[in-house]
Amino acid sequence: MKQHNFGAGPCILPQQVLEATSKAVMNFNGLSVLEISHRTKDWESVMDECRSLWKELLNIPDGYQVLFLAGGASTQFMTVPYNLLEKKAAYLDTGVWASKAAKEAVLFGETVIVASSKDKNYSYIPKGWTIPSDADYFHITTNNTIYGTEIREDFDSPVNLVADMSSDIMTRKVDVAKYAMIYGGAQKNVGPAGVTFVIVREDILGKVSRLLPSMVDYRLHIKNDSMYNTPPVISIFVMKEMLKWIKEVGGIEKMEELAKQRAEILYNEIDRNPIFTGTTDHADRSYMNICFVMNEGHKDKEAAFMEFAKSRGMVGLKGHRSVGGFRASCYNALPVESVQELVKCMQEFEKNEK
Amino acid sequence: MKQHNFGAGPCILPQQVLEATSKAVMNFNGLSVLEISHRTKDWESVMDECRSLWKELLNIPDGYQVLFLAGGASTQFMTVPYNLLEKKAAYLDTGVWASKAAKEAVLFGETVIVASSKDKNYSYIPKGWTIPSDADYFHITTNNTIYGTEIREDFDSPVNLVADMSSDIMTRKVDVAKYAMIYGGAQKNVGPAGVTFVIVREDILGKVSRLLPSMVDYRLHIKNDSMYNTPPVISIFVMKEMLKWIKEVGGIEKMEELAKQRAEILYNEIDRNPIFTGTTDHADRSYMNICFVMNEGHKDKEAAFMEFAKSRGMVGLKGHRSVGGFRASCYNALPVESVQELVKCMQEFEKNEK
Repeated sequence: MKQHNFGAGPCILPQQVLEATSKAVMNFNGLSVLEISHRTKDWESVMDECRSLWKELLNIPDGYQVLFLAGGASTQFMTVPYNLLEKKAAYLDTGVWASKAAKEAVLFGETVIVASSKDKNYSYIPKGWTIPSDADYFHITTNNTIYGTEIREDFDSPVNLVADMSSDIMTRKVDVAKYAMIYGGAQKNVGPAGVTFVIVREDILGKVSRLLPSMVDYRLHIKNDSMYNTPPVISIFVMKEMLKWIKEVGGIEKMEELAKQRAEILYNEIDRNPIFTGTTDHADRSYMNICFVMNEGHKDKEAAFMEFAKSRGMVGLKGHRSVGGFRASCYNALPVESVQELVKCMQEFEKNEK
Repeated sequence: MKQHNFGAGPCILPQQVLEATSKAVMNFNGLSVLEISHRTKDWESVMDECRSLWKELLNIPDGYQVLFLAGGASTQFMTVPYNLLEKKAAYLDTGVWASKAAKEAVLFGETVIVASSKDKNYSYIPKGWTIPSDADYFHITTNNTIYGTEIREDFDSPVNLVADMSSDIMTRKVDVAKYAMIYGGAQKNVGPAGVTFVIVREDILGKVSRLLPSMVDYRLHIKNDSMYNTPPVISIFVMKEMLKWIKEVGGIEKMEELAKQRAEILYNEIDRNPIFTGTTDHADRSYMNICFVMNEGHKDKEAAFMEFAKSRGMVGLKGHRSVGGFRASCYNALPVESVQELVKCMQEFEKNEK
């Protein structure tokens, strides 16, 4: 039976990416891609192609560098203040990951939370806040994977704007020039677990007075084309294949169109179906992680629905424990058909309930 | 033509590891191993099996934890002093990587180099030094990949002994109890690039007064079974397959026997063949990275030999630029046959020279 993978990450990848990877594991110019030295022309051309695809697909302006590092976005939570926080940092608290990012900054300097939606279990994006003009940077998490809220506009910021885009990078056009830095784990929309992308405007670096350990110093990684030490070879290879697929399918415009299409189909059903309800403010609904629960009077059927959906090939639908219910993660590689099948499940379950 | 991969890392892997990985990329319990969530029983069983194999193969005593982290050994250069350096650290300088490790410690406290072999381009392991008894820890690099020297004994140390075993872990029996910590990148003897192993005696942690960022705090990773954040899934999967292979072939005893066999065959030829010479002190010769150059009078033939070896399917033989000549890296997965073929090359080249 076909599996419909709604997992929150690591995520579904296109079949052609899996096939290219499986093949390269057996043979990549005579060796396995798992075996080749990162100090070879063969590998350098993978790195170059991957970097070029990032620049092309996201339309990254001059003055920015694209790095491929290890350690996940969580490592960047520490690396961002290490490199950028001299006196004061400002954070928008839109969820657990945003909050974890801010927590690391506290070790490096004054850290201000400009606004938080924790009061309502992060079910909305706070409004009406002001970015302190004396902050070294302002940090946002554009998509909140756990709660299903998303910021889909590029703010004007009086200070360096830093965004964790782990779960919505390459799913909409982004005006990169409005950001000083964008980073994230690859394992949702642009690849597998094991590699982290960092897009950084070079002129913001080297301004803090502290000494930096080598591995947290972006300048060192820039100087060494992300190969100061052995990079996570296989994860970068898969990311490159994923970016190739994005380009072939139609680039970011197409990804944005598909994301909107998937989200509309599913939110329409959530709003129509009397036994389900969404968990977030409509205005802040994520296109990526679509969270819903069963209405009062049906709550006891959540486990039954999960089983029903599972029997129809739905994988990874369980909501995060801090929200409960269901979460359909609809990343770049998820076919619209999978969402349609989920909607069918919801409709059939509704019928059976009557 | 069969390739003989003498690359210094990422390294050759056994055919069965490549096949299992290639297959799992296409299908791992219904999804791809690149797609499965790390918060599933399927994945947890991979993590558990990998941890168990580490403990079993290396005979790791109680009181130690085995972590699988991202970022390579270079990240540990910073993480070790972050966690362990309160006042003073001691380092043995046996090469560029040892020296880089010490350089990071300097940011965290007094750092003493107890001895160095830099005076002779790291061609030997320094002798006759004393470990300062007031140091928080003493750091060694057991195998020096670039220069081809190796420490193949487990020191008695009056202070916590910390070893970077990136390039010789699982190639000889190690008395783990003599170490407070052993770490390294997987990409030489135990897997692919992208995952770092850390074996740490738990009672040495939590003794420093500084506050630790989350991602450098070993206690946090212990508490979360190496899954505080998304782990490098595919790299851990390949490592687990590699450990399974080591076990099937005969465990560390067999790895040690094969390492010795490969090294003896090649060093014997280096010592016998009048046109080649080794670059390190005999007593400190590495079983892993076997470095040699052409003798005076033949120096101009190095490029020709490289071409000749290449035409016979030898890959990755070029010595590191700081040593020159040739480096045959003979990691766990390298068949003895590959070394025999290299020796044939050397003998034929010698014949043609006459």
